[in-house]
Amino acid sequence: MNGPIYPSKLLEKAVHEFSKLPGVGNKTALRLVLYLLRQNRDEASALGQSIIELCANIRYCKSCHNISDTDTCEICSDPSRQQNQICVVESIRDILAIENTQQYHGIYHVLGGIISPMDGIGPSDLHIKPLENKVVEGMVEEIILALSTTMEGDTTNFYLYRKFSAYPVKISILARGVSIGDELEYADELTLGKSIINRTPYHIPK
Amino acid sequence: MNGPIYPSKLLEKAVHEFSKLPGVGNKTALRLVLYLLRQNRDEASALGQSIIELCANIRYCKSCHNISDTDTCEICSDPSRQQNQICVVESIRDILAIENTQQYHGIYHVLGGIISPMDGIGPSDLHIKPLENKVVEGMVEEIILALSTTMEGDTTNFYLYRKFSAYPVKISILARGVSIGDELEYADELTLGKSIINRTPYHIPK
Repeated sequence: MNGPIYPSKLLEKAVHEFSKLPGVGNKTALRLVLYLLRQNRDEASALGQSIIELCANIRYCKSCHNISDTDTCEICSDPSRQQNQICVVESIRDILAIENTQQYHGIYHVLGGIISPMDGIGPSDLHIKPLENKVVEGMVEEIILALSTTMEGDTTNFYLYRKFSAYPVKISILARGVSIGDELEYADELTLGKSIINRTPYHIPK
Repeated sequence: MNGPIYPSKLLEKAVHEFSKLPGVGNKTALRLVLYLLRQNRDEASALGQSIIELCANIRYCKSCHNISDTDTCEICSDPSRQQNQICVVESIRDILAIENTQQYHGIYHVLGGIISPMDGIGPSDLHIKPLENKVVEGMVEEIILALSTTMEGDTTNFYLYRKFSAYPVKISILARGVSIGDELEYADELTLGKSIINRTPYHIPK
């Protein structure tokens, strides 16, 4: 079956480019493009302009691999943040999620993935070396492993633990337990089990 | 609640622009932008470039209001198409849908909407005048009403019928009936009723 015949090459090109995005098929792409055409021309162009500028100018922090407009990202260059506490995450999205909690005041290190033999991703495909260098130089006091709680995340945690346990660095991991707002009867057994083993002293909230 | 704090102004701008698209929220916008960043830079820029070119250069056919790269669209300027048979549609998407059937060989006229008092759209907001001019000049033999089978579509059909019934022009409407592949017991009563009233002579398929 042939694809639809578009009345305009420009339209066809734009639809084709949009349909490359994840979760966007030909029909959605057409809907988005026709939506743009119904908008003010300058406003619609702004989307195109922002993509081009992003692609041309975005950089990655040379220290932590976070996305950045500058050589060193805002977090790494912030003197009010604890530079010897490093939270290891899989991707930039995880940084945004943790930053939104406003509970963390150290810096980050983006691995750019997790060890996943099924997808052919091994330790050498991740940004582990720069983290190792920091540890070797004695710049790190604590490494917080904040990876997905999946098999791949656990594998990566184990790999990093093995790698860094030889150095005088504290290695911790995000607490596992029942989610706030969850009803106990619906919590899964593994999580509930962990939450009993890792129970914490009770404090009356101030 | 504040929005997330993005590590880069360029990233924030791109996410903001993407999130203006229909059905795209902040989280999806971020996912799309990070996807683009993982691609080859030139390929990601191509999306931006195609949007800018589209916005700068797209035109509407001066005859039928279809999207076009030229003053007159490919369909209107195609001598093999029957120029006195006009299919009236709501939007450009409907043209693509009908063209895909490969069963229609006349030309189109895009209204740019349908009469919808609830949304404040009256006849004067639609491209009816150019169609009227063609009819008055005697250039039209048949008008095929191919609008949505909704209350608003019916209202617009009725309006156009009233307007053009004074002229020597054949006015027809898309057949309503059971969809091919439908089981009768699941067809709605109105459609099934119409399909009995408008039954057609049975032919053995050749």
